[in-house]
Amino acid sequence: MPMLVECIPNFSEGRRPEVLEAIAAAIRAVPGVTLLDMEADRDHNRSVFTFIGEPEAVEKAALEAAGQAVKLIDMEKHQGEHPRLGAIDVVPFVPVAEMTMPEAVELARAFGTQMWESLHVPVYFYEEAASSPNRRNLPDVRKGEYEGRKQNISEPKWRPDVGEPRMHPTAGATIVGARFPLIAYNVNLATDRLDIAKAIAKKVREKDGGLPAVRALGFEIRERGIVQVSMNLVNYHRTGIHAAFEAVSAEAERAGVRVLGSEVVGLVPLEALVECAGHFLNLENFKPAQVLESRLKK
Amino acid sequence: MPMLVECIPNFSEGRRPEVLEAIAAAIRAVPGVTLLDMEADRDHNRSVFTFIGEPEAVEKAALEAAGQAVKLIDMEKHQGEHPRLGAIDVVPFVPVAEMTMPEAVELARAFGTQMWESLHVPVYFYEEAASSPNRRNLPDVRKGEYEGRKQNISEPKWRPDVGEPRMHPTAGATIVGARFPLIAYNVNLATDRLDIAKAIAKKVREKDGGLPAVRALGFEIRERGIVQVSMNLVNYHRTGIHAAFEAVSAEAERAGVRVLGSEVVGLVPLEALVECAGHFLNLENFKPAQVLESRLKK
Repeated sequence: MPMLVECIPNFSEGRRPEVLEAIAAAIRAVPGVTLLDMEADRDHNRSVFTFIGEPEAVEKAALEAAGQAVKLIDMEKHQGEHPRLGAIDVVPFVPVAEMTMPEAVELARAFGTQMWESLHVPVYFYEEAASSPNRRNLPDVRKGEYEGRKQNISEPKWRPDVGEPRMHPTAGATIVGARFPLIAYNVNLATDRLDIAKAIAKKVREKDGGLPAVRALGFEIRERGIVQVSMNLVNYHRTGIHAAFEAVSAEAERAGVRVLGSEVVGLVPLEALVECAGHFLNLENFKPAQVLESRLKK
Repeated sequence: MPMLVECIPNFSEGRRPEVLEAIAAAIRAVPGVTLLDMEADRDHNRSVFTFIGEPEAVEKAALEAAGQAVKLIDMEKHQGEHPRLGAIDVVPFVPVAEMTMPEAVELARAFGTQMWESLHVPVYFYEEAASSPNRRNLPDVRKGEYEGRKQNISEPKWRPDVGEPRMHPTAGATIVGARFPLIAYNVNLATDRLDIAKAIAKKVREKDGGLPAVRALGFEIRERGIVQVSMNLVNYHRTGIHAAFEAVSAEAERAGVRVLGSEVVGLVPLEALVECAGHFLNLENFKPAQVLESRLKK
């Protein structure tokens, strides 16, 4: 099975279709890269592209897309509700299969270097690729936004990790990083009592002493008359789908509430499902490469 | 996600590498087809090729491979321990993803027609593609083998389903069919008592009134000092991995024996794992297309 990485760049353009199409075309033109998704938001004036492939191809596609953004987006004219630092605002790399986090960090660093060398856009590294703990968190790095950073980029606190301490005149700066795939996973409860969903969410989330790498909130699902514990599993190697399910189920039982079922929202890496089946079946030595579909030529 | 079918033709040649290579090359040459495996047995003088792809490409690859076999294998000279009816002995088509059994049967029938029209090899249909119940079972159709069928092919009972009732002078006849993917799945028990494994196997297998589409035997795993219930799940839509696991676990508990773990031998369709995770998590509306890897361009 080949190494597989996902890249989800955020661009400061959500209105002009010709710009969005130029970025998409640049990504699609790279052999071995699959563009999975593209979402544009007019109010935020921002777009998010999701593509996947082997590391070298994904790096090339990200750089080609960034090249189009530098050419076509002018931050001096950009307006929108979402905070942003540059035309290519954020570029996370996510290891999906057969790839370790150090390898993803290396890819992010190589891409960041290219951003400066080819496109003269200074780069900050965040999350797993951060150069220091105070740069791990995206909102911290983006503080002050494009307009503020033009003023303070030469201060030691705001010096970029790659490149000279000056903003690109039209593209600003870019924040590049590596993170684990995020799994959006919800467990539905057979009750309409929102307080119970909220209490269980609090019990299982990392912030309040629960499971590692789990974020959780309680919600009402009005049209079904039930409540839901809605989770983001931000590192399924630390807390997998099965562990989240079992923790919520145990808390629900304690509260005297039945679990109706659960749902995965959006995409999930094969490995996360394999780990889940493996847990319940107590599988010995099972590898994702045993999944027939993983053997297909790409 | 594209429609995906697997083809596992068995050829009456297991000794001459140049013949095996010619067959493999014919398969590999078809765009969109992945040759997953190739096994040759000298004693049986027989080989098995496994390849996968979208239906049209797989049909083409099977026909190209059959063309090589007709050209290079002479049943008048063939000797080997394994029963066989022709140079291309058996050709099963297995629906792997996004494909129904009726669609796989249609593919098998189309391929069988091609075998006669292009290569003048008469064809029998078996398993799900069988034209009558007494032709479902492969050993029944192959009875008498190549030598015997030369004598009786014009008898009503042995008339081929496609083509005139005469054997190809060097390639004999071919048996073509459609069947579900087979999952080899074992559950290991924390005991060395073979009688317990055998009793559980008997309890869970279809033949003795157990789970539908399950074959099972009890084995000793000497080097670990344990026993195993070894199963073939011949239609995981009828009995999935999770149902087999739970049935064996329940019987083991009844016998006072602990389940150590379980193992999937060889390849498994993604859908079977998804169904398994879905069962234990009580997943609502989950689709194999939500698996990230399934979105990759082929």
